[in-house]
Amino acid sequence: MTSLQGPNPSSIEVVPPMNTSVTAFGLVRMIDNPLTLGPEMSSKMVGKAQGFYAQASQQDLGLLMAMNFAFIEGKYNGSTVTVLGRNQVFSTVREMPVIGGSGLFRFARGYVQARTHKVDLITGDATVEYNVYVFHY
Amino acid sequence: MTSLQGPNPSSIEVVPPMNTSVTAFGLVRMIDNPLTLGPEMSSKMVGKAQGFYAQASQQDLGLLMAMNFAFIEGKYNGSTVTVLGRNQVFSTVREMPVIGGSGLFRFARGYVQARTHKVDLITGDATVEYNVYVFHY
Amino acid sequence: MTSLQGPNPSSIEVVPPMNTSVTAFGLVRMIDNPLTLGPEMSSKMVGKAQGFYAQASQQDLGLLMAMNFAFIEGKYNGSTVTVLGRNQVFSTVREMPVIGGSGLFRFARGYVQARTHKVDLITGDATVEYNVYVFHY
Repeated sequence: MTSLQGPNPSSIEVVPPMNTSVTAFGLVRMIDNPLTLGPEMSSKMVGKAQGFYAQASQQDLGLLMAMNFAFIEGKYNGSTVTVLGRNQVFSTVREMPVIGGSGLFRFARGYVQARTHKVDLITGDATVEYNVYVFHY
Repeated sequence: MTSLQGPNPSSIEVVPPMNTSVTAFGLVRMIDNPLTLGPEMSSKMVGKAQGFYAQASQQDLGLLMAMNFAFIEGKYNGSTVTVLGRNQVFSTVREMPVIGGSGLFRFARGYVQARTHKVDLITGDATVEYNVYVFHY
Repeated sequence: MTSLQGPNPSSIEVVPPMNTSVTAFGLVRMIDNPLTLGPEMSSKMVGKAQGFYAQASQQDLGLLMAMNFAFIEGKYNGSTVTVLGRNQVFSTVREMPVIGGSGLFRFARGYVQARTHKVDLITGDATVEYNVYVFHY
């Protein structure tokens, strides 16, 4: 889940977009989004998705996303999964590579599939479902 | 191809360099460069190279580059290749790792070799040849 | 080793943190840190660690680090190792994935383990020990 507003937003603009761009080309936002088991904020939090995304497309929304899933729960506590890829936000399913991990996910390879569950077009707040597929040792 | 000027540049400065650095240490540029089959702008465009590079060297031009090749043509339409590595711009051949991909390039591993084909030292516009070597499923 | 001050710092702030954040959420620093064989500055320099880190955590120090180890010595001269992962600075041992490499380290996979050897809490200067474990061809 990502919230852009309020006293403690989980996503903030760190680099503004090019002011003549209709797609916000150049924008960079830092994220520290809760990873929960289900789509509700009351759902159990199992970690955070921490990193940034950059709007690197002039014609559509095509983000370069770099983030670590930092798990805090159960046997995965302290382990991470690293994702770097392209997020074409308005596609139904966006696939991004898992390029590595740490702890239990050492040597991880795989991919995530992101699907937007809910988005508030006024505030920009969004809930996104991630399914993560990894091979690891 | 990368163009730094004109009404619709394909590369823009998003973070300025440290003002006392002769190598522009600290500079970050966002890119959305056309990938064409040949070196001419009239050549068929098969995708975009979208991401950013950061000037992370104080003694020479040593970029950290992070980009997704987003293909739009034929069977590769919608598939991506993700590159993250070091680009020592003034070397004849710069090798950077392919660290992942999506779609047809899921689980991709490999490398790219970049060679400068043409550069306009006044405008900074450049045409760079990329040869991409990947294993994938 | 990383030095934040003096006429030629090896790490500079390129994006300021969110001003209401106690953890400096949003901060991005570019680094060009010497890699030496031992912990003293007089120790042999074998390369540079070039890239950036972003403070992507609102509750603790949880950096997203992206960097290339650019070696300059012996048979590794010109070869690189690329690291992208999460650095929880106050943990004794921080593991981050090696996601690729170039030259002799082409197709590298592995991990690094970082341990703080010495830190000056006034200046922020730090010496960090990196042990690098890689498979490659």
